[in-house]
Amino acid sequence: MLLESFNAQGALMAWDARLTSITPGACEISLPFSAAVSQQHGYFHGGVIGTIADAAGGYASNTLLMPVSECLTAEYKINIVAPGIGDTLIARGKVLKTGKTLVVSSAEVFAVQHGKEQLCAIMQQTLFVIDKK
Amino acid sequence: MLLESFNAQGALMAWDARLTSITPGACEISLPFSAAVSQQHGYFHGGVIGTIADAAGGYASNTLLMPVSECLTAEYKINIVAPGIGDTLIARGKVLKTGKTLVVSSAEVFAVQHGKEQLCAIMQQTLFVIDKK
Amino acid sequence: MLLESFNAQGALMAWDARLTSITPGACEISLPFSAAVSQQHGYFHGGVIGTIADAAGGYASNTLLMPVSECLTAEYKINIVAPGIGDTLIARGKVLKTGKTLVVSSAEVFAVQHGKEQLCAIMQQTLFVIDKK
Amino acid sequence: MLLESFNAQGALMAWDARLTSITPGACEISLPFSAAVSQQHGYFHGGVIGTIADAAGGYASNTLLMPVSECLTAEYKINIVAPGIGDTLIARGKVLKTGKTLVVSSAEVFAVQHGKEQLCAIMQQTLFVIDKK
Repeated sequence: MLLESFNAQGALMAWDARLTSITPGACEISLPFSAAVSQQHGYFHGGVIGTIADAAGGYASNTLLMPVSECLTAEYKINIVAPGIGDTLIARGKVLKTGKTLVVSSAEVFAVQHGKEQLCAIMQQTLFVIDKK
Repeated sequence: MLLESFNAQGALMAWDARLTSITPGACEISLPFSAAVSQQHGYFHGGVIGTIADAAGGYASNTLLMPVSECLTAEYKINIVAPGIGDTLIARGKVLKTGKTLVVSSAEVFAVQHGKEQLCAIMQQTLFVIDKK
Repeated sequence: MLLESFNAQGALMAWDARLTSITPGACEISLPFSAAVSQQHGYFHGGVIGTIADAAGGYASNTLLMPVSECLTAEYKINIVAPGIGDTLIARGKVLKTGKTLVVSSAEVFAVQHGKEQLCAIMQQTLFVIDKK
Repeated sequence: MLLESFNAQGALMAWDARLTSITPGACEISLPFSAAVSQQHGYFHGGVIGTIADAAGGYASNTLLMPVSECLTAEYKINIVAPGIGDTLIARGKVLKTGKTLVVSSAEVFAVQHGKEQLCAIMQQTLFVIDKK
């Protein structure tokens, strides 16, 4: 169900994003570099970095919620700490605190170049839990 | 130069995003709905909403900086306040405070359906000023 | 009831903070300079600035909720845009979006010196609505 | 010099806050419960929680900067994840990323009751580096 939800996200599919790891309370997403994820200097776009950070935190939360309920992003805050230079972008999300109505998650995003990961963003996020119909 | 920078952003071009208004300290960006900007329920994806909010705040700042300098996003925080349901997404960014090194901006994002705008996100952002080489 | 809640906040009372205006969806709080609100350069402390911003956003929300329910801060993000230099600190909060469970507010904080207000901080906040017992 | 700066903060001194640990890139601050740090339910005030989180992230950064330079808070975002119930509040800050101009830090805040720590807040912060005159 989690994978089904992920694969139904047109924006992530258009970028060829993949769920590369799911464990209880954690999630990893990666995507390859392409023109469709680039900014004006040929690096990964900050919006793409934000999007997979948001998704990684959200699906990390969903590992603890689905199939009974699922979450929606209420808000997130992201620091871009280095340019996203490389061939692959990896986001690792984890749950920091669960509640009945709100979940707090975080994610780190890494750009991979020549097989070496460099931290490029750090996110903190609040998710809202909704019952599945 | 600002438009040139905007049009060089592959991620925004892949979505057919347009700079629809630029005035000193303010900027408006819009983009049409398509599968490439959708999430699992067929609405505008939260990451897309975040991306154009970030871009709107950034280009609002660039109106005051270019061509002498330009800005990079240091961080942003966004609240998603309603689902992005509609045919068009519009982000309006404005500068709240300028400094020599940091600029603080905000943006509101609206989803347009049947010609009616609904607020779907509110962003607050810190940008870092860099000299153009 | 709102004033009663405000006056029961020991931290705000210790600083001699006052609710100087309440209208539906908005709230103003001010406090005088003293050693107890200072930082190492003799300005208003960033934590004090954050506290009254948070309180102003929270009580702005409470104007729409009390006495049926009230709100708790889920999270806030604040940009300090100038040092808090002056004899008085004023925070003005307003509600941006209300929901059944979450409210989004903002606040601006001003330092007043020689009768002139200078913007020193900008906050965006998410509040959680709880029923009053 | 770091301790001197800390002890010059009137707001923290008024609460009897203490620097309980300093190591390179990390810092711990604690303070005892009193009326001056309370909110309307008799718990630690959210503003106090935010203040010591901000200070813990800031002094964690200062451990890497002082005496050559020091930092000012540009912005922070904090999630309050549980009420601050207890006799002592402890904030632990650490540096996530250093740069020439900006430092990114985080902090966790715990309320201690009957000797047991409970996580009550999580913060992410951007600091601005300034040269000491």
